[in-house]
Amino acid sequence: MADTKSGAIRWGMVGGGRGSQIGSIHRSAALRDDVFRLVAGAFDIDPERGRAFAVDLGLDAERGYPDYLSMFAAEAKRPDGIQAVSIATPNNTHFAICKAALEHDLHVVCEKPLCFTVAEAEELKTLSEERGRIVGVTYGYAGHQMIEQARVMVRNGDLGEIRIVNLQFAHGFHSAPVEEQNPSTKWRVDPKFAGPSYVLGDIGTHPLHLSEVILPHLRITRLMCARQSFVRSRAPLEDNAVTLMEYDNGAIGTVWSSAVNAGSMHGQKLRIVGEKASIEWWDERPNQLSYEIQGEPVRILERGMDYLYPEARIDDRIGGGHPEGLFEAWANLYRRFAYAINGRRGLAPEGMEKLTFPGIDAGLEGVRWVENCVRSADAGAVWVDYR
Amino acid sequence: MADTKSGAIRWGMVGGGRGSQIGSIHRSAALRDDVFRLVAGAFDIDPERGRAFAVDLGLDAERGYPDYLSMFAAEAKRPDGIQAVSIATPNNTHFAICKAALEHDLHVVCEKPLCFTVAEAEELKTLSEERGRIVGVTYGYAGHQMIEQARVMVRNGDLGEIRIVNLQFAHGFHSAPVEEQNPSTKWRVDPKFAGPSYVLGDIGTHPLHLSEVILPHLRITRLMCARQSFVRSRAPLEDNAVTLMEYDNGAIGTVWSSAVNAGSMHGQKLRIVGEKASIEWWDERPNQLSYEIQGEPVRILERGMDYLYPEARIDDRIGGGHPEGLFEAWANLYRRFAYAINGRRGLAPEGMEKLTFPGIDAGLEGVRWVENCVRSADAGAVWVDYR
Amino acid sequence: MADTKSGAIRWGMVGGGRGSQIGSIHRSAALRDDVFRLVAGAFDIDPERGRAFAVDLGLDAERGYPDYLSMFAAEAKRPDGIQAVSIATPNNTHFAICKAALEHDLHVVCEKPLCFTVAEAEELKTLSEERGRIVGVTYGYAGHQMIEQARVMVRNGDLGEIRIVNLQFAHGFHSAPVEEQNPSTKWRVDPKFAGPSYVLGDIGTHPLHLSEVILPHLRITRLMCARQSFVRSRAPLEDNAVTLMEYDNGAIGTVWSSAVNAGSMHGQKLRIVGEKASIEWWDERPNQLSYEIQGEPVRILERGMDYLYPEARIDDRIGGGHPEGLFEAWANLYRRFAYAINGRRGLAPEGMEKLTFPGIDAGLEGVRWVENCVRSADAGAVWVDYR
Amino acid sequence: MADTKSGAIRWGMVGGGRGSQIGSIHRSAALRDDVFRLVAGAFDIDPERGRAFAVDLGLDAERGYPDYLSMFAAEAKRPDGIQAVSIATPNNTHFAICKAALEHDLHVVCEKPLCFTVAEAEELKTLSEERGRIVGVTYGYAGHQMIEQARVMVRNGDLGEIRIVNLQFAHGFHSAPVEEQNPSTKWRVDPKFAGPSYVLGDIGTHPLHLSEVILPHLRITRLMCARQSFVRSRAPLEDNAVTLMEYDNGAIGTVWSSAVNAGSMHGQKLRIVGEKASIEWWDERPNQLSYEIQGEPVRILERGMDYLYPEARIDDRIGGGHPEGLFEAWANLYRRFAYAINGRRGLAPEGMEKLTFPGIDAGLEGVRWVENCVRSADAGAVWVDYR
Repeated sequence: MADTKSGAIRWGMVGGGRGSQIGSIHRSAALRDDVFRLVAGAFDIDPERGRAFAVDLGLDAERGYPDYLSMFAAEAKRPDGIQAVSIATPNNTHFAICKAALEHDLHVVCEKPLCFTVAEAEELKTLSEERGRIVGVTYGYAGHQMIEQARVMVRNGDLGEIRIVNLQFAHGFHSAPVEEQNPSTKWRVDPKFAGPSYVLGDIGTHPLHLSEVILPHLRITRLMCARQSFVRSRAPLEDNAVTLMEYDNGAIGTVWSSAVNAGSMHGQKLRIVGEKASIEWWDERPNQLSYEIQGEPVRILERGMDYLYPEARIDDRIGGGHPEGLFEAWANLYRRFAYAINGRRGLAPEGMEKLTFPGIDAGLEGVRWVENCVRSADAGAVWVDYR
Repeated sequence: MADTKSGAIRWGMVGGGRGSQIGSIHRSAALRDDVFRLVAGAFDIDPERGRAFAVDLGLDAERGYPDYLSMFAAEAKRPDGIQAVSIATPNNTHFAICKAALEHDLHVVCEKPLCFTVAEAEELKTLSEERGRIVGVTYGYAGHQMIEQARVMVRNGDLGEIRIVNLQFAHGFHSAPVEEQNPSTKWRVDPKFAGPSYVLGDIGTHPLHLSEVILPHLRITRLMCARQSFVRSRAPLEDNAVTLMEYDNGAIGTVWSSAVNAGSMHGQKLRIVGEKASIEWWDERPNQLSYEIQGEPVRILERGMDYLYPEARIDDRIGGGHPEGLFEAWANLYRRFAYAINGRRGLAPEGMEKLTFPGIDAGLEGVRWVENCVRSADAGAVWVDYR
Repeated sequence: MADTKSGAIRWGMVGGGRGSQIGSIHRSAALRDDVFRLVAGAFDIDPERGRAFAVDLGLDAERGYPDYLSMFAAEAKRPDGIQAVSIATPNNTHFAICKAALEHDLHVVCEKPLCFTVAEAEELKTLSEERGRIVGVTYGYAGHQMIEQARVMVRNGDLGEIRIVNLQFAHGFHSAPVEEQNPSTKWRVDPKFAGPSYVLGDIGTHPLHLSEVILPHLRITRLMCARQSFVRSRAPLEDNAVTLMEYDNGAIGTVWSSAVNAGSMHGQKLRIVGEKASIEWWDERPNQLSYEIQGEPVRILERGMDYLYPEARIDDRIGGGHPEGLFEAWANLYRRFAYAINGRRGLAPEGMEKLTFPGIDAGLEGVRWVENCVRSADAGAVWVDYR
Repeated sequence: MADTKSGAIRWGMVGGGRGSQIGSIHRSAALRDDVFRLVAGAFDIDPERGRAFAVDLGLDAERGYPDYLSMFAAEAKRPDGIQAVSIATPNNTHFAICKAALEHDLHVVCEKPLCFTVAEAEELKTLSEERGRIVGVTYGYAGHQMIEQARVMVRNGDLGEIRIVNLQFAHGFHSAPVEEQNPSTKWRVDPKFAGPSYVLGDIGTHPLHLSEVILPHLRITRLMCARQSFVRSRAPLEDNAVTLMEYDNGAIGTVWSSAVNAGSMHGQKLRIVGEKASIEWWDERPNQLSYEIQGEPVRILERGMDYLYPEARIDDRIGGGHPEGLFEAWANLYRRFAYAINGRRGLAPEGMEKLTFPGIDAGLEGVRWVENCVRSADAGAVWVDYR
């Protein structure tokens, strides 16, 4: 872990103002390791509130902007202007802001979903390549050390050929129509703001991305998705969905995405089954990874231990036994974003710029998966070729 | 628990001879509570071995029969002849033996699957009604106290309207082609003996039946099933399958049936999600039932405790805290079979003849479900109307 | 597992009549494997009730005796008289009955505590040796397969030199003065019937015995015990106690015995710490044994698996994954009692007569430990040399 | 959570230089919520290395001091000098540095143990009162939300009268003499640097402090402690210890402190048993608190949920389901330190200055407990009156 401010990236935010939990998480993660320095922000749709918040955060008042376009324009003219920006606004604005940021030659960190269609995502990808800028997407647990361990275990053949991929993110917090009282939930079930899906995009893409990290060599060939609106007022958006996927190596996968899994806290779980062994991980007890070799006792791998693969120990902050959680996973991600950005300037510690992180392709694949799921579901939960 | 031999039913077995684990479980269960008395058997396809085994079990040598037909014929002539018979032979013989037993006016306890087709099952059902005889099917965990608790909780509305039914029985013992060395596995993957499916019928019907016990009011309207033969030599029989089910109340269900879930012991789990709460049960820790009311702390219900519903305490043998296991679940089932049989003679303790047990309908529904799954899978994992 | 009645031992019971849970467990265990045959009993202090119960159990009416002395006398005269007897009466009667049984040349299975003083226990030991009869004591979990596994692991050096022995049996069922309503608890807190202790003898001796099974080479050199009566009306008997023990190899041990551990079901747990590794076992999830090698991932060993030591697989009834519980542990014990009895007649299967079981020494050591604990506690919880 | 820099306290460090894990944790915690601003440090006994590290951390070079005395002197003369200092040096230096800091009118945050004797601790206490400065001690988990929940549950009578207090912190990382290779362990087992104990002070005081937070009304009246040096070269310092404690209300407590609990990660666990219910907490799964009312199902309380007491939700950063860990507990503590410091200037948010934190009394009580334990152990593990 870097104990230095050298190379800290000048950083701004769009959205995530006062009272925003997600904004707070972004700042906590970006500032944790002194790899970013917050210098500007368009935090709020209410310009005055946004400026006041900026001042409270210790920014110069003039760098608390009324909107993202004026921020991008003004910062571009400053010699000390922002080099990167994070986007923590409602889903329907991600595409436009992301595009504008890239057009101003900024590196981008964007909340998922990156956008609503594959076509948009591909446009952003082309743009990011043209401008030589990274786009990071905040699939937070992709930064967890045990996900790295899982990735290297699969790469190393510890599981053998992969056969079954069971994914779920199934909480119960929206079992009742809480959006009637809670505005912060309301937009999530409104297609205008949320896009073509609720839980598929908002929830299901998280474990899906983790599976892509762990199983980069597998390709979905076709899928089918059944989605339901158990709280009827949420239709056409779903609050529960089951997706089946066939992979090019013959493996079968399932994703259970739900906001109505009553009584469950998060329920983000992965189980990857290979011909020799399985691994299982649960975000609510994230420091443990179950490693189950057929015919041997189950082994419980612990974060921070010497027996893990080196890749799983790079991000260790404190040694085994001490629990780390979501915040460390996010901070690890932001550090990897920083390494990737600095790597383009030759400033990253050696080798660090190669660390995996959810970039533009992760954002694109999430959008693609939702698009395929919705296409299947809307046709009656039929199989569709993945495209 | 009955502490009496009075009313013990004269009982015989077909199959389950020396070295048969399943035969041993049947005897352990039937004899545990003095509700059956073993008096005859056709234990083995080798008549001599069968007779020797009978003698070892303490039977009269003459009642160790060479085959089931001669047993049924001879016993029918005795005033002290068998009143009930259990069938613990390979799957492909269940139908014929069961039919012959009913035709000899015997009560029957049969290993699942009861038979291979719905037509056969319906024939047996008609016959059992005509003869006034019960057919019990040994879905063992249906006898577990916590399944009773779950059943009454649902009936009582503790979960509210049911939304999601997640079932699995997914072990890993056949991750490799163990049948090449192990004859007791070999027949399971041979359609001639195993019937139209391997894990769907052999494994998946177990949690399916438990869901029928707990959710008797739900009807499957359509399903789809994808099945795989990860060990290729098992084709056309599957060693892994995923089934999706839609119910008449709008609920969605999944069943994961697998023998290649590497590293898993049994993995028989149920999670029933209602609009208010969920319950979850796992056969490897069967004395606990997780009860999860949305917005409240998860509660861990324990077998044998006073706070359970009375129906869940009828079968209690020892009080809470002491672990019970598979053997007690089976013994409870056999006791219920006995109550049902005796109930027809007015001999069961009051009310006991009404206890639920897996009868001919359970057998029929298991066969029906496999038939629908196979029909779907063989058509390319498409949705099929349930029939 | 024996599938035979040959060699079944003619067996009687003292106590354990209608409504007695413990009597029911003894019968279930003894009869499970056809190694004992119940032929006589003095089940009840009310002769008529005892006789009626005997008849209900299928015994000849004449062998339902009014008291144990007349049973021992009458059976001794029969050519088919009992060869062994189990004692399931209140604690204060164990010694006299056990002594009388041995004097009638009977093998004995006795509930713990065997008696109230070391002097009594030694008298019984001498008598059992003189008469060539076994005395089995029902520390039920001593029959569990994972305890066998633990025993062989220690013997095999898998843990290295033993350093720490943490034992507990701490339930919460008597947190309130339940004995005021519940007569079956009342005698346990009355020194006249319970002897010099409540939880130390009734509860604490269970994990203590398991530690003796697993660590036969360790000797306690001194101990101290603090005992409390949190429900004051129980004084002088304790409902909670903590015992510290020093062993001859320098190891330190603790035993927590409690009936007021509110909310706990059983809480019988062992943790044995060696210089290389630890093992941990919990009677409420008895099919698993945690094996924790320092510096390696924790391994969860499962009952019934091939990777266990052969000694841990002798008693397997059903294969791994299926949960076994208390009843199987007891049945295994009774089978070992039978092997030991038959072994003296040359009738046990080869090698089986050598299986470990809690015999007269186990009974003696339990009494000795309680005596030392009480001596320490009554002197103000001071260290006392173990004697 | 404060989203503001206003009121940030000017802060310095002694020790915790490059490569120090504990220094890194202090900075991460203090800077997490913008309540402290690092402006000076004497990070290293090597002045040059310390200065270079200061620069790397973004400090002015002149404020990277060669030693703590020159830092305290120089900073005292600056109008923008440090207001608070954290001490992360070896144990034997804590007293002198802490004393000097208070004499320079600085607020202090000190690693535990605060010092080696009660006399020293009392001197520091007097000094802190005279100077009107706080002394915070970093018992990190005291900042965890579920500890707050436990504290309020006890205060609220949810458990009833407290009967049993079982504490442990028992890891296995030092099962072998790792100090022979690892210098960062070496000083811990050297009385010159570590003081009169190893695991009692280094480890055992952690759960002890948590018990003081949760049970502020209980007073230890006497205790006894047995300590062992299983790795013999560690003598006279212990690597394992068992302490028994009697409380003024009649409760009994135990503390297991160990560094040789092979295979255990941390093993910091609390179980508090009351007459009505128990609570149990484990630092490796810190987001859950088991609440066990006698006669009811165990409830698993989750961090961040609305059903918790308000005091347990003040520190919530992210909502239930997301795991928090050690870093958040530490950051919460540092925030409370800041509130307490600012409260003395009337700058803390209303009510926040009243939040509990481990202050000088916590430091004093830790030292007192170790002193009593050592006194008991060295006298042969006898009971000593607590003083």
